[in-house]
Amino acid sequence: MAPLKLHGVPFSTCTARVRACLEEKNVEYEICPVDLGTGAHKRPDFISKNPFGQIPVLEDGDITLFESRAINNYIAHKYKNQGTDLLQHGNLDDFAKVLVGCEVESQQFNPTMGPIFFNIFIAPLRGWAPDQKTIDENVVKVGTVLDVYEKRLSSSKYLAGDCYTLADLNHLPYIAYIMKTPHADLINSRPHVKAWWEAVSSRPASVKVSQGLTLGSSH
Amino acid sequence: MAPLKLHGVPFSTCTARVRACLEEKNVEYEICPVDLGTGAHKRPDFISKNPFGQIPVLEDGDITLFESRAINNYIAHKYKNQGTDLLQHGNLDDFAKVLVGCEVESQQFNPTMGPIFFNIFIAPLRGWAPDQKTIDENVVKVGTVLDVYEKRLSSSKYLAGDCYTLADLNHLPYIAYIMKTPHADLINSRPHVKAWWEAVSSRPASVKVSQGLTLGSSH
Repeated sequence: MAPLKLHGVPFSTCTARVRACLEEKNVEYEICPVDLGTGAHKRPDFISKNPFGQIPVLEDGDITLFESRAINNYIAHKYKNQGTDLLQHGNLDDFAKVLVGCEVESQQFNPTMGPIFFNIFIAPLRGWAPDQKTIDENVVKVGTVLDVYEKRLSSSKYLAGDCYTLADLNHLPYIAYIMKTPHADLINSRPHVKAWWEAVSSRPASVKVSQGLTLGSSH
Repeated sequence: MAPLKLHGVPFSTCTARVRACLEEKNVEYEICPVDLGTGAHKRPDFISKNPFGQIPVLEDGDITLFESRAINNYIAHKYKNQGTDLLQHGNLDDFAKVLVGCEVESQQFNPTMGPIFFNIFIAPLRGWAPDQKTIDENVVKVGTVLDVYEKRLSSSKYLAGDCYTLADLNHLPYIAYIMKTPHADLINSRPHVKAWWEAVSSRPASVKVSQGLTLGSSH
């Protein structure tokens, strides 16, 4: 079977989110680099794959997907009996916890951690000064989300229970980047979150993918 | 079997999103009202159900879920052979389209339509003046999302193909509210989006749920 094609770049957080899933599921894939510098993601051939002009895009034969979390859901469903069980399909209660954990990442963590990442790692690439007020406000907001995680992780090893799932995995890229900044304290100051992050980030798939997260390596 | 318990209020967009799903799946449920005015959602008994102190919460026997999109995924999976087939599980390509459509709603539509809704319908309840700059900026942004929808809907009746799915349903509450404002033009000015909305909003489940969306009825 032809390997899946992942259009993206290794330093992109959303590309890394999908790579981490593919690695956990032992799915063969090839990275098809997208030259963001010349705007390749805004040209018609790419827009025909993702009308929003964003990476990553996954091609699985005739099936084309975009949005990293949708792609990860697809991979986790299609290969549910292969590699790490990222959905806990077998038990309705466990599956419910994975669904909730994934949505908390998407709706609570991502909107508050995203602007911090953007201002520290992306704004400088565009010649913009980081917006310190936005960073400061979101450090407080993501802190309240991590306070909920701290309590949750005092009673289970991972966010959806005692197994590593998509609810944990989807957090990988942003935290891997943030750990290279003084805001690493958001994680390190919370003992259960810190232990969780050590378990998440030390997985072979996480180590491999994190090596590609090279933006702002001077930070 | 005891009906599911939905903690929330009918005028809430996120409660309505879940109600629409329960109605489409013909699942028996009861609404357990949460008195937002007295801060019932911030008290310990509610926080024990959702640590973020937000409605809705669904209780299905011993299983407790929060985050409306997670709840809808759970309902659509658990009752996949009952009511409207909101996930298109039977075909991998169709299922992939539903996953992508749901994430587009979550990551592209919601972050741009949310602030418009908030400033028009929620800010006044808190005695705040609507932030017109935020409204104007997001009208432009959501317009670019709806331009993508317009093109998509020129080749299929619904966002994930020719069947009504969760990818459509999750849009219901925000658009139902926005249609009561001058920003209805965002929908009405795009012929395929307008036809899609007429199909979505005229479904019996949509009509029933929309009757509860009574915020700002003077607008």
